[in-house]
Amino acid sequence: MAGIGKKVWAIAEGYIPMDDETKDRRFVSHETACILNPNSVDAKIDLTLYFTDKEPVKYGVFVKAQRTLHLRFNDLEGPLVPRDTDFSALFVSDNPVIIQHSRLDSRSADLALLSTLAYSE
Amino acid sequence: MAGIGKKVWAIAEGYIPMDDETKDRRFVSHETACILNPNSVDAKIDLTLYFTDKEPVKYGVFVKAQRTLHLRFNDLEGPLVPRDTDFSALFVSDNPVIIQHSRLDSRSADLALLSTLAYSE
Amino acid sequence: MAGIGKKVWAIAEGYIPMDDETKDRRFVSHETACILNPNSVDAKIDLTLYFTDKEPVKYGVFVKAQRTLHLRFNDLEGPLVPRDTDFSALFVSDNPVIIQHSRLDSRSADLALLSTLAYSE
Amino acid sequence: MAGIGKKVWAIAEGYIPMDDETKDRRFVSHETACILNPNSVDAKIDLTLYFTDKEPVKYGVFVKAQRTLHLRFNDLEGPLVPRDTDFSALFVSDNPVIIQHSRLDSRSADLALLSTLAYSE
Repeated sequence: MAGIGKKVWAIAEGYIPMDDETKDRRFVSHETACILNPNSVDAKIDLTLYFTDKEPVKYGVFVKAQRTLHLRFNDLEGPLVPRDTDFSALFVSDNPVIIQHSRLDSRSADLALLSTLAYSE
Repeated sequence: MAGIGKKVWAIAEGYIPMDDETKDRRFVSHETACILNPNSVDAKIDLTLYFTDKEPVKYGVFVKAQRTLHLRFNDLEGPLVPRDTDFSALFVSDNPVIIQHSRLDSRSADLALLSTLAYSE
Repeated sequence: MAGIGKKVWAIAEGYIPMDDETKDRRFVSHETACILNPNSVDAKIDLTLYFTDKEPVKYGVFVKAQRTLHLRFNDLEGPLVPRDTDFSALFVSDNPVIIQHSRLDSRSADLALLSTLAYSE
Repeated sequence: MAGIGKKVWAIAEGYIPMDDETKDRRFVSHETACILNPNSVDAKIDLTLYFTDKEPVKYGVFVKAQRTLHLRFNDLEGPLVPRDTDFSALFVSDNPVIIQHSRLDSRSADLALLSTLAYSE
């Protein structure tokens, strides 16, 4: 049984607003990929970030069986994701997962939010 | 005839901002699954919430034929959904429905909204 | 050739915030179904609104070939859509179209927006 | 091998709020189509904008292999996209891409955001 979800996901919109990242973590502007693994096996995911005018960069992500990971792109290391820079993300998982994209923009006094289901195939 | 909709839905993003829940109910920060049952039979739905580092929790939801239910996760009981905590939701229905996710964040003076069609299969 | 789009669409989230509807029309809180008809034939659409605890209500919508209609639920008549009330919408078209849902909430001094692709089949 | 993505995409919601376009570019209200081309061949895209009561207008867009383009409708020329005007967008690409729609509305002191996966087929 293949499990619930898909193995290939893409988020075409990507942008981490430059913000004061020493604020309360809940209120720092962030770009997130929420990854649900509702199945009985762990998921190992190859994440590739694409940019406007430079080569793609690759990362590894791991989501345990029956768990969710709200992955902040702000937290990726080796290398850091540049701020105030357009990017897109492609996820290729060894097992099915479900991915949703969201952003909190708190550069101004108040909050702005966006979210969308990612593209899957 | 199977009806309009799908039986399996997932919302990978989930987060109820900690807020003053004695405010006017319309303006309390909330996380919602809007469930439309446009068909001629009632829908009985098994809802499972997934967390980052603990076991999933199960709830039951019921949506009458030809009715909509805007289910606030804030209102779920047995147990309550923890605030300021990442989660994801999986819905498995005995009959087809359509599910959309939305959140009102009113922690600041002004409002922030997000919404997306949930993942279905 | 069937054309681009689908004939059945659903928006499970629906809610028109109570607002001062004598304001500049651009800034009145509104709930919208954006309907694109990119094809060479007109589209005649049966729209049904579903509620939490009362019978569905039906409306008719018409979108010309090669045109878009940003339909404000606020503007529907016979009967008016109640404000501050949960609803869902089902669209059944005689020809394919593409539907996206959006809301502007301007009850507070600042603006909040949401948008999502509707569910199609 | 066909590559990841689809060749036909539509964004039924379109609206560029009238704003002061001499502000810091990051904070000018804008409507964006984020186009990811994760594949090994360039994508040449025919973009058609549809309006409420006038003929469609065509543009050309180009996205290099393994790059992303966050296309601001504000920046389209020949002719300019009218502000404060409803429109929809149809993209037909010669190679598969992934498209997500987003808007920043910064007419008020604070920011409002929306985003959704576009419709594909």
